[in-house]
Amino acid sequence: MHAIVLNTGTELLLGDVQDAHLAFIARQIFPLGLRIEERRTVSDGVAIRETLAEIFPRAEILFVTGGLGPTTDDITREAAAELLGLKLIRDPEVMSAILERFATRGIQFTARVERQAFVPAGAEVLPNRSGTAPGLYLRANLNPHFRSPHLFLLPGPPRELQPIFERSVMPILHSIVPPSNSLECRIYRITGIGESLVEEAIGERISAISGVELGYCSRPGDVDVRIIGKSNMLEQADKIIRATLGDSIYSMSEATLEEVIVELLTKRRETLSLAESCTGGLLANRITNVPGASRVLLGGYVVYSNQAKMDALDVDLKLIERYGAVSEPVGRALAEGARMRARSTYALSTTGIAGPGGGSSEKPVGTVYVALASPENEIIAKKLFFPSDRETFKELAAQAAFDLLRKKLMSRSSQ
Amino acid sequence: MHAIVLNTGTELLLGDVQDAHLAFIARQIFPLGLRIEERRTVSDGVAIRETLAEIFPRAEILFVTGGLGPTTDDITREAAAELLGLKLIRDPEVMSAILERFATRGIQFTARVERQAFVPAGAEVLPNRSGTAPGLYLRANLNPHFRSPHLFLLPGPPRELQPIFERSVMPILHSIVPPSNSLECRIYRITGIGESLVEEAIGERISAISGVELGYCSRPGDVDVRIIGKSNMLEQADKIIRATLGDSIYSMSEATLEEVIVELLTKRRETLSLAESCTGGLLANRITNVPGASRVLLGGYVVYSNQAKMDALDVDLKLIERYGAVSEPVGRALAEGARMRARSTYALSTTGIAGPGGGSSEKPVGTVYVALASPENEIIAKKLFFPSDRETFKELAAQAAFDLLRKKLMSRSSQ
Repeated sequence: MHAIVLNTGTELLLGDVQDAHLAFIARQIFPLGLRIEERRTVSDGVAIRETLAEIFPRAEILFVTGGLGPTTDDITREAAAELLGLKLIRDPEVMSAILERFATRGIQFTARVERQAFVPAGAEVLPNRSGTAPGLYLRANLNPHFRSPHLFLLPGPPRELQPIFERSVMPILHSIVPPSNSLECRIYRITGIGESLVEEAIGERISAISGVELGYCSRPGDVDVRIIGKSNMLEQADKIIRATLGDSIYSMSEATLEEVIVELLTKRRETLSLAESCTGGLLANRITNVPGASRVLLGGYVVYSNQAKMDALDVDLKLIERYGAVSEPVGRALAEGARMRARSTYALSTTGIAGPGGGSSEKPVGTVYVALASPENEIIAKKLFFPSDRETFKELAAQAAFDLLRKKLMSRSSQ
Repeated sequence: MHAIVLNTGTELLLGDVQDAHLAFIARQIFPLGLRIEERRTVSDGVAIRETLAEIFPRAEILFVTGGLGPTTDDITREAAAELLGLKLIRDPEVMSAILERFATRGIQFTARVERQAFVPAGAEVLPNRSGTAPGLYLRANLNPHFRSPHLFLLPGPPRELQPIFERSVMPILHSIVPPSNSLECRIYRITGIGESLVEEAIGERISAISGVELGYCSRPGDVDVRIIGKSNMLEQADKIIRATLGDSIYSMSEATLEEVIVELLTKRRETLSLAESCTGGLLANRITNVPGASRVLLGGYVVYSNQAKMDALDVDLKLIERYGAVSEPVGRALAEGARMRARSTYALSTTGIAGPGGGSSEKPVGTVYVALASPENEIIAKKLFFPSDRETFKELAAQAAFDLLRKKLMSRSSQ
């Protein structure tokens, strides 16, 4: 079924507010086999009417967000009723719910507010427990003389829309959508390989399987491979993806790399410390975004200056003088210093040149060493090159460092 | 002029990724008097072609994001060329830029990548220094037999689109858009006051000035006040905003709080160190996102465990036992410990309960102490309460800590 989302709101088009509805609705309806085919965003006022008229003939399900409030540019309810030739009728139940809400909060009732109690004839009210304006459901072709989609009018604030969607819209959708439609979506998160190499490795073979839709999405240091189809059709694709990409796949549950690491360390009752030069606290920040990180992260050291490297992590000055602060020996010494100081099972270190300044012909901006210190005094170091803007460089270096640890933990787990 | 944004990307409609382009573009073009009238989002593949055909007749300026990459579902370039009846020509300059990019990074060149070097005849290439696919500009009615808008095809990743937009798209827009349209937009960045209090303080008085449009945008710990109008009309509003909000305004140039701090410290040739418990590296990460941070940040300590607080920063165990790790005395000791260890002019510390676990009735989730150690052994500490999800809590605590330092630096500067 052809489903469309229409977001109304001038603030969205001015860039003051980010829309959160599309992502929420898409994820809610996916298990029904429904996908949003198109999303439109228009400003408040007359544009709403024009756009509804344009979309009606081609949508089967239409979700409209916003424009149900008390102010003069909130015209979604009126525009829909007018287009469909339906009268607006004052609904006494909605009215008393609004009055009660105002009384409880001691807010003054104004005449404008009353508009929100009007309901197009034949529409179903979707109660709003978190705000004033209720949602409305107008079934397809409610006025038999006019072709129209299943129409859901929903209030703009996410904390109002979301409970209405879960409580009232989903049951209606279940009754509308034929069950045979339902599809499965699997996402494989991959790091250490670029998007074009991922496609080269699996693209043709997956695309050749009929009934499987393949997609990619990349972020710095990360590629998501997404397959959609009937469960039985996905099995074949799944086998190819796993066999080809192997341990470059770090998650099949949309977990982040830091979540995977915290989970692995927690299971193994092992601990981590961090010695960050060029990533400047990004590793620590990402790890501590994960609930329960305090069980695994013993300490983090942001050692930008040479003095800090020596004072906090016992890096030998001679090493810095001989090889430079951005070098494999210093990277190794940082990891080992952190592991010793924090008395952790593992320690990760980063040292590199984030730029824009500080590069040389021998060590250009983008050069980075990541190192991992493990038990038995074993240290692995890796040289990488990520010439990018400063924040992307930090992201790529962090991703490479985390992946060094993840692979180590995976290899130990499988022993 | 009627400007439209078309976002392409199946991942957007599946809810996997949030679009950041609309807000960015809207803010960029605003000073030209241009507003986005409509935004569409469609999936990769054939929908792009259909939507372009539908939008062409009614747009005067059209920004298309995404679909320029190497994979088979990236068809924006081909769809636009086909619709306009333009040949795609392999551009040797683009090709050599791509080859150079791959060589520098030691990435394997694949045949698919070459597609990105094809340019519709007559289009202007907008170089991409942060990625492979360049942007493209096709002027209005480039094929005189076919009505078409000024068409900008831009790569999907924000870190590629944004520099191209600033460097190449804006100059072209300046030459297209009649200057009489132009309005001024001023943004005041405010921290330490909530959005509704900001509105209560200035809302009515600013709205009463004719010709000035007022807007707000809030992020965790931050409110932007935006006024739009002719320059002379803005002066009056500007006076009211500054007089009312005073030193809560930390930037009028959209600088971040960490940028303001790095600039103030650099000017004063002073230095900073950080002792982070509950913010877990976020302060360090934000400071080191600012180019030149290495001149001011001497060291950062992420001290989640009590042991790390004692080992790395000499916090007295008795203090922790008597008051708890989340307490004002420990917050002060952390700041002082970092300042002594790193030998910096200032040190900031944070200690609190980010949640979801770890709260108690006396110290519920959301409790946080921020402290600032300054020369002359002066330490300022502040207790705050931010009951939120983990990441928002960290953002709010970081913002409060930075603002403590900013206000200190401002008061010293004005002495």
